[in-house]
Amino acid sequence: MKRTDVVYTDELVTVFVNSFFSGHNNDGFAIVVPNEHFENLYTLSTECGHRIFEVAQKVAIAMKRAYGCDGITTRQNNEPEGDQHAFHFHFHVWPRYKDDGYNMLKPEQKHLAAPELRASYAQKLRDALEQS
Amino acid sequence: MKRTDVVYTDELVTVFVNSFFSGHNNDGFAIVVPNEHFENLYTLSTECGHRIFEVAQKVAIAMKRAYGCDGITTRQNNEPEGDQHAFHFHFHVWPRYKDDGYNMLKPEQKHLAAPELRASYAQKLRDALEQS
Repeated sequence: MKRTDVVYTDELVTVFVNSFFSGHNNDGFAIVVPNEHFENLYTLSTECGHRIFEVAQKVAIAMKRAYGCDGITTRQNNEPEGDQHAFHFHFHVWPRYKDDGYNMLKPEQKHLAAPELRASYAQKLRDALEQS
Repeated sequence: MKRTDVVYTDELVTVFVNSFFSGHNNDGFAIVVPNEHFENLYTLSTECGHRIFEVAQKVAIAMKRAYGCDGITTRQNNEPEGDQHAFHFHFHVWPRYKDDGYNMLKPEQKHLAAPELRASYAQKLRDALEQS
């Protein structure tokens, strides 16, 4: 993660544009993480869980305006068999579009996105959050 | 939804085993809904959002014990292009298993599950929640 990926931060949580895009027209999806370490949902503190909800809701509304997407899907994975690959709780906010192939995610299409591209999505989200 | 699908209810939210199973070895997935009507994440009240987090966390922990699954994925869809089909906010808690095909969801495999089968999953979840 680079500094330019960061969309929002407060004393409890941070939001950033993920470094890896899915290859399914859902570029610029955002991740909300607690600043303190919790491995997964099972152990996340109530205080952080509440704030993650609040911030994810704001990011979803801002993403609609910033990206012009048709919908939003939020997702959160726990344990390797649940598709958790980074062992710090993280909550995904995905932009959704008509026929985006989101339900047929193919790992081989996942790719590291250029820092400049990620930064441009992060800038759009920051601007939309500031206007809300 | 039948009465026997209900896992938990309080003054703000209700949890039930979904009537439709996915056909991907994720049978018995649970839905958390606010009792008051909110169409989606964009308009959900903070009070309900907080409670949904708290209850979804308890259900995730109980589901691990009740079903013996290997992980948990939570998901919440907004608007038709975001795969929202029922226009009352609902938060999915999915049991995950090794090679369960969850990322290749095929709508044609979705099917109405027998009430007795749903009831047996709901009973397992209720028992596990009561023991927590």
